[in-house]
Amino acid sequence: MLEEKGFSPTPLSKIGEFGLIETFKKSIKNTQKSTIKGIGDDAAVIKKDKNHYQLISTDTLVEGVHFDLVYTPLKHLGYKAVTVNLSDIFAMNGNPTHITVSLAINARMSIEAIDELYLGIMAACEQYNVDIIGGDTTSSLAENMISITVLGEVEKKKITYRDTAQENDLICVSGDLGAAYMGLQLLEREKSVFEKTNDAQPDFDGFDYLLRRFLKPEPRKDIIDFLNEQNVIPTSMIDISDGLSSELIHLGHLSKKGMVIYENKLPIDPQTVNAAEMFKINSTVCALNGGEDYELLFTIKQDDFNKIKENSNIHVIGHVTGNENQYQMVGAGDSIIELTAQGWNAFLSQNKN
Amino acid sequence: MLEEKGFSPTPLSKIGEFGLIETFKKSIKNTQKSTIKGIGDDAAVIKKDKNHYQLISTDTLVEGVHFDLVYTPLKHLGYKAVTVNLSDIFAMNGNPTHITVSLAINARMSIEAIDELYLGIMAACEQYNVDIIGGDTTSSLAENMISITVLGEVEKKKITYRDTAQENDLICVSGDLGAAYMGLQLLEREKSVFEKTNDAQPDFDGFDYLLRRFLKPEPRKDIIDFLNEQNVIPTSMIDISDGLSSELIHLGHLSKKGMVIYENKLPIDPQTVNAAEMFKINSTVCALNGGEDYELLFTIKQDDFNKIKENSNIHVIGHVTGNENQYQMVGAGDSIIELTAQGWNAFLSQNKN
Repeated sequence: MLEEKGFSPTPLSKIGEFGLIETFKKSIKNTQKSTIKGIGDDAAVIKKDKNHYQLISTDTLVEGVHFDLVYTPLKHLGYKAVTVNLSDIFAMNGNPTHITVSLAINARMSIEAIDELYLGIMAACEQYNVDIIGGDTTSSLAENMISITVLGEVEKKKITYRDTAQENDLICVSGDLGAAYMGLQLLEREKSVFEKTNDAQPDFDGFDYLLRRFLKPEPRKDIIDFLNEQNVIPTSMIDISDGLSSELIHLGHLSKKGMVIYENKLPIDPQTVNAAEMFKINSTVCALNGGEDYELLFTIKQDDFNKIKENSNIHVIGHVTGNENQYQMVGAGDSIIELTAQGWNAFLSQNKN
Repeated sequence: MLEEKGFSPTPLSKIGEFGLIETFKKSIKNTQKSTIKGIGDDAAVIKKDKNHYQLISTDTLVEGVHFDLVYTPLKHLGYKAVTVNLSDIFAMNGNPTHITVSLAINARMSIEAIDELYLGIMAACEQYNVDIIGGDTTSSLAENMISITVLGEVEKKKITYRDTAQENDLICVSGDLGAAYMGLQLLEREKSVFEKTNDAQPDFDGFDYLLRRFLKPEPRKDIIDFLNEQNVIPTSMIDISDGLSSELIHLGHLSKKGMVIYENKLPIDPQTVNAAEMFKINSTVCALNGGEDYELLFTIKQDDFNKIKENSNIHVIGHVTGNENQYQMVGAGDSIIELTAQGWNAFLSQNKN
């Protein structure tokens, strides 16, 4: 059917992953009464009982795409494969409870290597009190792959979606941004040095935080617990996996609102600034578009500001506006920079003008 | 760490997938109160409410290992990726409700190809009334891969495990066995003919059932519904993915019982017999070790026999004994054949003696 004469197949790159998901989302007809929310948020939502929802999310890491075994310790990889999934449950204001693990493993992986991978998976589960309840291990002819599905739970009244930000809400972000991206740049640089000279010792002095952010990210359970203690339910939330700019636009687009953030409010670690200088990259660009931060981006009512202001891990970076489709950053000298979803290149070229 | 001097890594083939799962099962400590059963059955079991359990299972299909795109239509592949997962939920005497789909797709796949794959996934979901609630699509540098996680539900009093077969129970199997394996042999033969001549038309005359069994297996929802209507709760159950012999030994081993089956009771379709003759393979061997049947193997109390005997899709093939670790088939002239788990080669060589 696909080989009919005159038929030219369309490459995936033409519509990309988001286009693909949008296409199928439209065709999917859900019929189970218990389905509250399907594709389109950090996790799917299923009715559990009168006062609780169950959350479910899945994330796959593919060798050569999401990780490079040249510089990724297997224990860290296992840990990260779990924590990036947990992050999706926290982003719904929920708590993860169980995971299943699917591994596709090639013949180059020894038992000892798989053991290291599993030790990392188990360490993350222990750290976040999550049970490993299922798994599937198959062989792979080429790359290794880890696919994890996480289940979680949330009180019905506390669930936080992406599409419910309201005008005048404050935009908050946890932790700091851009560090994981700089960690990756450092690792890639050392890899290429090593490939050329074959006996160089890696030089990561003063950048340990950046490496940790990339290799062993911790999801923000502490933030969810804090908000819960303070009786703050965010008005919308998403986790930052593809970069602040992209996630801000998700929240704005789905909530049909605009977003304004302030460059001088962006939380950036000094190590990130130093590394960015070294690589001659604008550290604001790292913070906006770096990705893999696994921090939480959320909005709260202005009335809740007093309840969160003492927490040094939460930063108010801007506010929600009524100007649908307008996503802006206020920079030095009150300059206005339009944020774009595929921010990296677009933003760079805009900055150069 | 893995590259220390004098360290020789152990290849995975040395302990195999089962060994691997056993190793990690021992190290996993579950702490969530809601976890009823983790790794070790067709699906994991979580408490849902007073009278219901939730079921969860995951299965991954890797290109080159589980499917060959030379002869697998993508729509069938999508369908099969779902139904092999649903089969695990039926094997717990439950009903599937939701799935999440993870795809890792390489650049050779066009949008139209992915569309076909998704059409198959959606067709299976519609057929079995299952909602698609989540997904993750990533790129892959080499093989394509589909990982599906299925959620299901079962009444607490009806859940059926693998380790609860009782002495004198009847051993039942649904449908027929060995057909998918012969379907695979036919497809592989035509592939090799095609590769040599490049213009041969495939010759599948009279074998359409075998191809369908391999390319588009249907899980046995009808059997679960029938047992439910008849108020029969199997005493143990497993789905047949790795071959009858292997699954029988699983039930026996976990239940600490023996198993006796009768060669002349094995349900084998005439097309399977014909194809086996053509390939000069013993059709009993196909039935015992073929795999990918996705039929249900279950045990029932003798008292329930009258309730199931009219169903032509259920076959009583033997009974459970008190002889732990003894798994036997009674063949022609009352000969006794010992069944082995890695049945294929072992059994073949035994037959030759």
